[in-house]
Amino acid sequence: MKKFNRKERIAAIMNILTEKTNHVFTYNYFTKMFGTAKSSISEDIMIVKDLVKDLELGKIITISGASGGVKFIPTISKKESEEFLKEISLELGDNNRIITGGFMYMTDILYSPNISYKIGRIFVTKYWAENIDYVVTVETKGIPLAMMTAKILNVPLVIIRRNLKVTEGPTVSINYVSGSTRKIQTMSLSRKAIREGARVLIIDDFMKAGGTAKGMKDMMKEFKAEVVGTGVLISTPEPKKKLIEEYTALINLKSINDVDNEIILTPNDKY
Amino acid sequence: MKKFNRKERIAAIMNILTEKTNHVFTYNYFTKMFGTAKSSISEDIMIVKDLVKDLELGKIITISGASGGVKFIPTISKKESEEFLKEISLELGDNNRIITGGFMYMTDILYSPNISYKIGRIFVTKYWAENIDYVVTVETKGIPLAMMTAKILNVPLVIIRRNLKVTEGPTVSINYVSGSTRKIQTMSLSRKAIREGARVLIIDDFMKAGGTAKGMKDMMKEFKAEVVGTGVLISTPEPKKKLIEEYTALINLKSINDVDNEIILTPNDKY
Repeated sequence: MKKFNRKERIAAIMNILTEKTNHVFTYNYFTKMFGTAKSSISEDIMIVKDLVKDLELGKIITISGASGGVKFIPTISKKESEEFLKEISLELGDNNRIITGGFMYMTDILYSPNISYKIGRIFVTKYWAENIDYVVTVETKGIPLAMMTAKILNVPLVIIRRNLKVTEGPTVSINYVSGSTRKIQTMSLSRKAIREGARVLIIDDFMKAGGTAKGMKDMMKEFKAEVVGTGVLISTPEPKKKLIEEYTALINLKSINDVDNEIILTPNDKY
Repeated sequence: MKKFNRKERIAAIMNILTEKTNHVFTYNYFTKMFGTAKSSISEDIMIVKDLVKDLELGKIITISGASGGVKFIPTISKKESEEFLKEISLELGDNNRIITGGFMYMTDILYSPNISYKIGRIFVTKYWAENIDYVVTVETKGIPLAMMTAKILNVPLVIIRRNLKVTEGPTVSINYVSGSTRKIQTMSLSRKAIREGARVLIIDDFMKAGGTAKGMKDMMKEFKAEVVGTGVLISTPEPKKKLIEEYTALINLKSINDVDNEIILTPNDKY
């Protein structure tokens, strides 16, 4: 077996922790991989921990005891997240994005993997300590954000469908009222998707009146799961009273005006 | 500014390259970050390159010249990918997954971020040298695989919709015939989603007759984009003649028998 020196070991450890975040790797895992004593691995991890702190790459968490180990959570600093949201807001505010009917083209932003990964880091920074079991969203536009949040938290993603699927087995369906259009709609989820008592984080791209988020919350009740947080990229100030009470929105969309050809939005400083 | 030593620098470089794969970071980026001479960074990167090779973590590619730099692609070794596909096949073959009507429950696998990331690594290992501009899929179940493939390739994801959306602006719609059910269906994509002349990789979860993949290919023609590859997680041996000629399937699903309560599938060795 090739002998790895300290600098090689800590670089490899950094790669492994970064690729599979929020997963506890035991010290044994690394001693086997490198053929090194536990005391050396322990020192390696201390160096990694200090470095991650110095460069504000996230958090290294060490767990002591027999089943102990180390995990990495790529939380984001307040400064980096503010700068990033300012940038995204500028991009989204471009009036070329206005679509007839008062809509905004934003799938290029939502579906850009490194942008959605960074948005995921912001949600994770807020919710990582909540012991989340699943990230839940409803198809389609919120899926990439939800997927990246689930990736960082290392938990399964759950996608609620708009239509009943025969390929999913026994299904729970609920009706909900879209808060803005007042139309009754249906969402469905396979009985197998979530276990009882789970703690879930709801992630979506957009919230107006909160009808969809409320629907997802009601769906979670059917599974006896607890919603411990709701995060959306964009919300509108109107209607002021949303159908759910607690949520985190990263950007406030004040208006899309297709007469004056203007989109007004600002990062939300108080998320 | 804090001075970082070699072992700290290469660990940080490994974190940065692993978090944003297939992105060229210039040597200047690192000299500024660490306040170190270019010659030191150059040596750091040589160490990282050897390490990545020794541990089979993927590929480090260095680009020389003024606009040069370094990037990391987490390709996967033949051995690791074979072991992984064997594991997934075992899990999918569990007869508790059989759903009335001859379907198989597999969303827990598809929506598990670290499984779909690894599947993404397999597709990337096959297609990374093709200079892909977009990863394209159709909603819904293939989205997580496509998203992870796009993340690793550092290119935008494009999601074709089953229904026309008013929020997407001018849209191209095409009709296609589902190869297995022979039903005519529609898929739609915003005009803005793909630029002319782009090279795209199509990713989906499942292929039977290839009607959906053929539909996506036809859609790409409307955008004057070139399909350079099609990757699916699972395909069926029947019908033998698919509606598209070239594709990569990682697992062969021979049968789902809800009378004998048996699923027969095997990893595809020849992808």
